[in-house]
Amino acid sequence: MKALLLIAHGSRRSPSNDEVGALAARLRDGTAEMNFDLVEHAFLEMAAPDIAQGGDKLIAAGADEIILLPYFLAAGAHVAADIPAEAARIQSRHPTVRITIAPHLGAADEMLSLLRDHLRRFVER
Amino acid sequence: MKALLLIAHGSRRSPSNDEVGALAARLRDGTAEMNFDLVEHAFLEMAAPDIAQGGDKLIAAGADEIILLPYFLAAGAHVAADIPAEAARIQSRHPTVRITIAPHLGAADEMLSLLRDHLRRFVER
Repeated sequence: MKALLLIAHGSRRSPSNDEVGALAARLRDGTAEMNFDLVEHAFLEMAAPDIAQGGDKLIAAGADEIILLPYFLAAGAHVAADIPAEAARIQSRHPTVRITIAPHLGAADEMLSLLRDHLRRFVER
Repeated sequence: MKALLLIAHGSRRSPSNDEVGALAARLRDGTAEMNFDLVEHAFLEMAAPDIAQGGDKLIAAGADEIILLPYFLAAGAHVAADIPAEAARIQSRHPTVRITIAPHLGAADEMLSLLRDHLRRFVER
């Protein structure tokens, strides 16, 4: 079973964390053509579930392949070091599960045009 | 003069901060139709220029209208409290400058489809 784990930073503000959960739910419906059997979200810090809990939940549900998708704009220390370290920790506990990390969202080619469209809507409101 | 200030979190990793500077430079070229006379970037923490420095630079260059664009995915405490507080601080020092804050990037309607396209490219690589 193939699983997607959307990883956000996490906030002390629960509405912010709820947004991430809602986004994961929309991804669950919106990625049918990529054949994910499971889609969950997790937080790097300040909120639950954390990455280890998110990974364990997917593995308990039968995942043998997990793609971690860092919902981060910048390749700071969280993306460059912290998420890979968490992934390695899950991997060491579950050596037969195939775990990969997708590039962080900020690396997306379309980010500039999204930023521009978003700004245009505000400027022309 | 109308100015745009792109605000990112800031990182201890300078390549991450350089990405933000490069994005601001691309925005400078890519937002011609929105008539910004000036486009700069600033960091909330951990990197220079900070928001006050970014705002002062724009005002010194002649800006009398500044749009702050929070380059953040989630409406956490940084977006909900810290950036508005910095904006209010600039405003109190420069009462005649019109300062507004655009919705954070994560609020963009197109975020789900960007996330999906980004993921698809990784899955189908």
